[in-house]
Amino acid sequence: MTRETGTGKYEQLLARCRSLDPVPTAVAHPCDASALAGAIEAGAKGLITPILVGPSEKIRDVAKQHGIELGKVRLIDAPHSHAAAAKAVELVRLGEAELLMKGSLHTDELLGAVVAREAGLRTGRRISHVFIMDVPTYHKVLIVTDAAINIAPTLEDKVDICQNAIDLAIALGVATPKVAILAAVETVNSKMTATIDAAALCKMSDRGQITGALVDGPLAFDNAINRDAAAVKGIRSAVAGDPDILLVPDLEAGNILAKLLTFLANADSAGVVLGARVPIILTSRADSVRSRIASAAVAMLAAHARRQLKATA
Amino acid sequence: MTRETGTGKYEQLLARCRSLDPVPTAVAHPCDASALAGAIEAGAKGLITPILVGPSEKIRDVAKQHGIELGKVRLIDAPHSHAAAAKAVELVRLGEAELLMKGSLHTDELLGAVVAREAGLRTGRRISHVFIMDVPTYHKVLIVTDAAINIAPTLEDKVDICQNAIDLAIALGVATPKVAILAAVETVNSKMTATIDAAALCKMSDRGQITGALVDGPLAFDNAINRDAAAVKGIRSAVAGDPDILLVPDLEAGNILAKLLTFLANADSAGVVLGARVPIILTSRADSVRSRIASAAVAMLAAHARRQLKATA
Repeated sequence: MTRETGTGKYEQLLARCRSLDPVPTAVAHPCDASALAGAIEAGAKGLITPILVGPSEKIRDVAKQHGIELGKVRLIDAPHSHAAAAKAVELVRLGEAELLMKGSLHTDELLGAVVAREAGLRTGRRISHVFIMDVPTYHKVLIVTDAAINIAPTLEDKVDICQNAIDLAIALGVATPKVAILAAVETVNSKMTATIDAAALCKMSDRGQITGALVDGPLAFDNAINRDAAAVKGIRSAVAGDPDILLVPDLEAGNILAKLLTFLANADSAGVVLGARVPIILTSRADSVRSRIASAAVAMLAAHARRQLKATA
Repeated sequence: MTRETGTGKYEQLLARCRSLDPVPTAVAHPCDASALAGAIEAGAKGLITPILVGPSEKIRDVAKQHGIELGKVRLIDAPHSHAAAAKAVELVRLGEAELLMKGSLHTDELLGAVVAREAGLRTGRRISHVFIMDVPTYHKVLIVTDAAINIAPTLEDKVDICQNAIDLAIALGVATPKVAILAAVETVNSKMTATIDAAALCKMSDRGQITGALVDGPLAFDNAINRDAAAVKGIRSAVAGDPDILLVPDLEAGNILAKLLTFLANADSAGVVLGARVPIILTSRADSVRSRIASAAVAMLAAHARRQLKATA
């Protein structure tokens, strides 16, 4: 994720952001150069209005050492990473922030504050992770889920993982996202739970238990992303060859898939966590500036979609 | 099943039989009046050419006592019901009979000979039972399966049960049978296996693992047979309101459903066992002549379809 490649798909997302107001964003513990620069840069691009939450002296030191201009950015003091996570979450609960952004603390620490029973940001939905990928050899943005949080999701978990990704794709401007439910094979086999779950998810989509998308599966990876491979197998599917979303069977399969796309297919990937009260921008130290900005752009579009939903509710 | 009601649906089946040759049929142990009369009558109607298998003296006695004219019917001696079942099955294996008909022996005894590992009539398919019902308040013949043999079918069993019924419906002249997979609800719920199985069967139909039919489910009974009930629930389904086949979750549900249709909706029902090398006509002592003749007609159409399949294979 350190290359500055890509084929303009992220730029199309950024173009969608241009007409929208920056979204107030609680940045939890931005105490290293890349986390701090990421937040400030996303602010400079007009995607977010960062509210830095963490040990203020340390944040000012890091800014000074690395020539990062803090300007008039709001800074809320919190003694350590744990407190910073809790405070950032509180800002969201108070309505002062509509996005949460991970700084230099550990992902688990931030998510711990997010899923805290009393003071957290839980909703009825399960929390899930999406990679928003720009794959040079694929014709559009590809969302991969869940390759980072849910280890062995049950059918119910997959329903939420699926709906989270669908809602995001719609927020990114896809009218009716196409979801490919991946498995090792494209046929239903009661010995392979992923294929049974796939069939169940398809019917749940038929019955309105999952909404807003065209869902098909089980599909093997080849017939999911390649229409000819699907045709050879005699699969008639509105999704095969053209998915916006790949729903993977479990974390291991997802992780391998996402990493393979990144390292062998030169894909860029941006990460966002969904299903909490607000989207969470989840970048890692290895991410390129391009990936960081894309994550912020995706989260910003999701936050604006959430605003619209609230306005019409 | 003792009324002589019905609304002409069975008569349409009989009309289809008229142009076809009678099918040689091994009748196992026809040693009471109703079993013997049923076989002879189906012979007189030109549906089957009965080959009576059982204790020949006893069969002749029963015929004499009840004024049943045996005429030139072939009679093969077998000392008791067990031997009669085995001999009848052997006639099928030898190609001398293309149908098996239950006489006055117990169903389990006949099916025991059918599923015998060495000398039986097993195929790759699971054996299953269908009721072919003429329900006055429904607009066409309704096939209910499996309400008699498979107690708690697995997904794999249901695939065979479903395909057996589809093949039969096609043999009866339905170009593309519509299959409603019944459950207690029309939504997918991982706590209710029948709904998960239903979703799996639908996808298996999509993927060509089940062929020749339009399959939809889970459907509750009301939205399966009534288009308005489905519309109220927002179910878009090519099957709802118009199924040819109701696939029930298990034997208990199926048995209640079939009996309710018979006793409270004045339905006539004919019974056939499918999935063995040849169709098996399974009538019970309580059956009306109408039901017996309908069973023979259904089996005869299935046997002719099997002939055609063999000829083109």
